[in-house]
Amino acid sequence: MDIVLLGSGNVATHFGRALSEAGHRIVQVYSRTKSHAIVLAKALDVPAIDDLATVDPNADLYVISLKDDAIGQIIAQLPPALKGVVVHTAGSVDVGIFAPYVQKYGVLYPVQTFSIAKPVDFSIVPLALEASDEATYAQVAQLAGSLSTRIFRCDSRQRLALHVAAVFACNFVNHFYAIGANLLQKQGLDFDLIRPLILETAQKVMSHVPGEVQTGPAIRNDIGTMQKHLELLEENHPELVTLYKQMSERIYSN
Amino acid sequence: MDIVLLGSGNVATHFGRALSEAGHRIVQVYSRTKSHAIVLAKALDVPAIDDLATVDPNADLYVISLKDDAIGQIIAQLPPALKGVVVHTAGSVDVGIFAPYVQKYGVLYPVQTFSIAKPVDFSIVPLALEASDEATYAQVAQLAGSLSTRIFRCDSRQRLALHVAAVFACNFVNHFYAIGANLLQKQGLDFDLIRPLILETAQKVMSHVPGEVQTGPAIRNDIGTMQKHLELLEENHPELVTLYKQMSERIYSN
Repeated sequence: MDIVLLGSGNVATHFGRALSEAGHRIVQVYSRTKSHAIVLAKALDVPAIDDLATVDPNADLYVISLKDDAIGQIIAQLPPALKGVVVHTAGSVDVGIFAPYVQKYGVLYPVQTFSIAKPVDFSIVPLALEASDEATYAQVAQLAGSLSTRIFRCDSRQRLALHVAAVFACNFVNHFYAIGANLLQKQGLDFDLIRPLILETAQKVMSHVPGEVQTGPAIRNDIGTMQKHLELLEENHPELVTLYKQMSERIYSN
Repeated sequence: MDIVLLGSGNVATHFGRALSEAGHRIVQVYSRTKSHAIVLAKALDVPAIDDLATVDPNADLYVISLKDDAIGQIIAQLPPALKGVVVHTAGSVDVGIFAPYVQKYGVLYPVQTFSIAKPVDFSIVPLALEASDEATYAQVAQLAGSLSTRIFRCDSRQRLALHVAAVFACNFVNHFYAIGANLLQKQGLDFDLIRPLILETAQKVMSHVPGEVQTGPAIRNDIGTMQKHLELLEENHPELVTLYKQMSERIYSN
């Protein structure tokens, strides 16, 4: 397929790489800030554009990977009568956002966290798909199937819940890693000491469901230990006391 | 070394296996509940005991792996004049707990989460060590070094902070996995959809520090997306609204 990428951040970059590697042809990279577009465009060896009027109307697919609140603005400014399907890759933007402006549209949401620095094996990234109509769905599914072995149909409501789940299981989790790092640093201990624990905790739920492998003082209702933890937090990290109590109560009462 | 295991739960079981595999001789397994002692004792092919008076006084090492609040009681009831070193394996129990009862003592705290069902590569488990005196420390370090390549000295205060860090980065993290699973289930989606994301999130901090790889709507201050997430939570999971807001504020303001 001939594909126009709209966006040049983490997600656009990973999609660009994966689409190229799957044998598709990226024909343009758009960004409002041309210098941003140029970085990705150079890596993909294609033209960079910063004017939506110059978007190629003959591409097979237009992939919008932008901040959620920018997606609507871009859709409204796309040239009329684009030949191909327009999709966005966002977790929390309803597919209906396209309806006033575009005829054939869809969603291709990758359930993964992307960093510029770290390559990701796209072939195992679950891709949540949605489209304006069945013919368009078939096109989106064909494209998605060329990128990943794990594609599935998912309406906008389900996708929103999936995104919230991802926020808890990834973004909030990473913040707890950061809290751990901070607690260690205050005692002159290295973050490396809890890396095996972090990895094991994640690996454990690859083959179990999390509710069945909960460990720690809260699930055992080990009040003495929790009391010692709270005393340390009250002294050194008072801002964490309420959070520690709430989490422990949630774990115990679940 | 000849070793007596006091305890028969997750940690005792993993220690028992690792000690046997490292060529040490487990001579007894104690549990207050004999049926519990028997399970582990059978697996290790050694005698099970439930009476502290029958603890072998000639072992080189006594490893107490029990609930935190049981440790003090057991120490107080140990036979006098034990030949070997007595250690516990707890994160939050001060080494001073031994002082009134035992002469040579220490701590051997494994920074890892253990489940009966899942074997753990003990050779990479960080072991936090502490002892009553330098000669005893050397003995504990020798034993620990036969189990793991990652041993380090750590006083009781540091160890407590390490345990709190582990609670955030493991126990609380697992609860966020459980919240994710619950959010998905309510929408008829499988937990398997976020497993690659969970693993990637953990793998990312194996080579980075968490503060540098934070992603998601909160760090971007993407208010529109967070608002949609809160609306979904208010409708379906009102008990998560405050937690979502607190976590997002913490991430944004950090």
